[in-house]
Amino acid sequence: MNIHKFVMPEIIFGNGSISEVGNCCLRLGASNVLIVSDRGISEAGWLDVVIDSCVKAGLKYETFIDITVNPKDTEVDKGRNIYLKYGCDSVIGIGGGSAIDAAKAIALLATNGGVIHDYEGVDKIKHPLPPQIMIPTTAGSGSEVSQFSIILNTEKQKKMTIISKSLIPDIAIIDPETLVTKSSHLTASTGIDVLTHGIESYISLAATPLTDVHAKNSISLVAKYLRPSVASKLNKEAKTNMAMASLQAGIAFSNAILGAVHAMSHAVGGRYPILHGDVNSILLPHVMEFNYLANPQKFADIAYLLGLNDCDISKMEAAKKAIDLVKELIQDVGAPQRLSEIHVKKEEIPQMSLTALNDACMITNPRDVTVEIIEELFRKAW
Amino acid sequence: MNIHKFVMPEIIFGNGSISEVGNCCLRLGASNVLIVSDRGISEAGWLDVVIDSCVKAGLKYETFIDITVNPKDTEVDKGRNIYLKYGCDSVIGIGGGSAIDAAKAIALLATNGGVIHDYEGVDKIKHPLPPQIMIPTTAGSGSEVSQFSIILNTEKQKKMTIISKSLIPDIAIIDPETLVTKSSHLTASTGIDVLTHGIESYISLAATPLTDVHAKNSISLVAKYLRPSVASKLNKEAKTNMAMASLQAGIAFSNAILGAVHAMSHAVGGRYPILHGDVNSILLPHVMEFNYLANPQKFADIAYLLGLNDCDISKMEAAKKAIDLVKELIQDVGAPQRLSEIHVKKEEIPQMSLTALNDACMITNPRDVTVEIIEELFRKAW
Repeated sequence: MNIHKFVMPEIIFGNGSISEVGNCCLRLGASNVLIVSDRGISEAGWLDVVIDSCVKAGLKYETFIDITVNPKDTEVDKGRNIYLKYGCDSVIGIGGGSAIDAAKAIALLATNGGVIHDYEGVDKIKHPLPPQIMIPTTAGSGSEVSQFSIILNTEKQKKMTIISKSLIPDIAIIDPETLVTKSSHLTASTGIDVLTHGIESYISLAATPLTDVHAKNSISLVAKYLRPSVASKLNKEAKTNMAMASLQAGIAFSNAILGAVHAMSHAVGGRYPILHGDVNSILLPHVMEFNYLANPQKFADIAYLLGLNDCDISKMEAAKKAIDLVKELIQDVGAPQRLSEIHVKKEEIPQMSLTALNDACMITNPRDVTVEIIEELFRKAW
Repeated sequence: MNIHKFVMPEIIFGNGSISEVGNCCLRLGASNVLIVSDRGISEAGWLDVVIDSCVKAGLKYETFIDITVNPKDTEVDKGRNIYLKYGCDSVIGIGGGSAIDAAKAIALLATNGGVIHDYEGVDKIKHPLPPQIMIPTTAGSGSEVSQFSIILNTEKQKKMTIISKSLIPDIAIIDPETLVTKSSHLTASTGIDVLTHGIESYISLAATPLTDVHAKNSISLVAKYLRPSVASKLNKEAKTNMAMASLQAGIAFSNAILGAVHAMSHAVGGRYPILHGDVNSILLPHVMEFNYLANPQKFADIAYLLGLNDCDISKMEAAKKAIDLVKELIQDVGAPQRLSEIHVKKEEIPQMSLTALNDACMITNPRDVTVEIIEELFRKAW
């Protein structure tokens, strides 16, 4: 075993925990906070809950709610300008992965200067970030605990992956009650994203015993609770467990990194304004079919975590079952299954394959890839 | 589910990781570090490794290696005086739970003033502690990740439990190579301590899904690797896995707290200079027999984690098997089984029982206790 490192923020988890955000800011020494979010969260009323908690704690605040799906360098610029203009000293991000990734990127620029493109890649951040508190509302991205921020380079139509321990927030507040305002489509899409985080981090070349326990638990929670969570907005047990699944998958992938599904998904998301979870849902079974050779034991484990009940089959048979069980789950929750369905153009495959090959997430994929292999996987998924 | 909180330090784990300590200090802004340890660690050569790493990183340092088993308020005082006299700005603790608990207590006094008795109980610490890096060398205490410090009140012959998030170190460095210098008795004793942490945190009233995954993994690692670790100093696989077991048990109990075994064990340790793990080893089976009524499902889980292979028995039967399997393990590794063996006086049981009843660890025990029940448990274990 090589030396491995594991780090995560302080976690506050539970119904109603969102109201603790103001006091958390105080505890971190904040007095004037920039709240970063999107219009959907604002309309659902969650922004008001955050503002209310900040006001009660005696904090000054500004809001910036213009973040869109697959957050853009231009949005990060605007947010940084507001932060500096109003002399903010801390950042709250509330929303899905887009809002949180943008909030982290704004915090990064606030103390490090320059433009977000300067920080693409691993460990490019020099100065500490201001206090950051993140509140996920989708049970999907895991960004609230991760050392990742994925920002779209609008000029090059390419997602930039920024990785640094500095991007790990100080506190992550996970309140399952925020999940009841999600549509069933968004629940399915973000749920499959969680599953993808769990599976890719479990089979990652950088997986460790500390990441494995969280990855495994997230997979079995998704297997048990994603279907009922998609079925009913009001199933609190399902929502709470999907929030926990998302958190644990986030802890796992922040430390074990991901694999080919995410590398390829970033390449698609850079060109199309499509939900990240929908792209993962399409790619995951195909990448699993390619990857299972790399670690049959862990694929067999995944099959049992997903509910395989047959102890009399061989390890290789169990490993293959993992792929069938993932396909079934994707079908059951109505997530998309083909790139053509979401209007990805076939002629863009070669360019997207090149982009995917160079994505930071590809480094930890358990099976070696070439650009030809990625093209073939994209074609199978088309 | 209520709101629950989870926090842990940054982890660096692996053979040779001890040499990173100097750079870790620099990263935390330290320039003049107090290294707290004991004479055994110094004689084993590990202190020199730490000093070497600090010197290479250009740090100034002082050492304080007078910590003894069940660390004392008087030792903490001395350490604090050295810290202040030499203008230190950070603390490294290297050793077993005693050295690390003492290092944390010294760091606490350095910035908070007063005497260590002022901080007994929960959340009494007002000011942030200086940067702290802890390096465990026993695969036992879990103190390197925990929010606990247990210090002996020498006047009252009573262990003081200090609990605060501020006591969680900044970085924990776990280097399994440090374990090869341990005696087989110490390996057994600290290994049973790990098992006790895993079991007590798993059945604790404050357990959460985040603590459960680590508690369960620690129990199954102890079941698999404690015997071979006691058998051979040179079995690196066993040492590495016991270090991981200790770490994960520490993460679990720091956030889920413990139970009656530790409450009672602290009461014994306050009066006798006996290894903490030896006392736990004696008490654990008796407390489990008393506690299993409180959570048969989790006791059954423990039995399967400890190696129970029979799926055809009832939950209650499996729950009882957990106790037998713990007894077997204790016997196999040669840990003590009776209080009389370690020369505890029977007439002290009433006083120790009163002390145990008021220990902070008793609050999360899954079954209600009275002083009479504790006396009865002590008598059974005598």
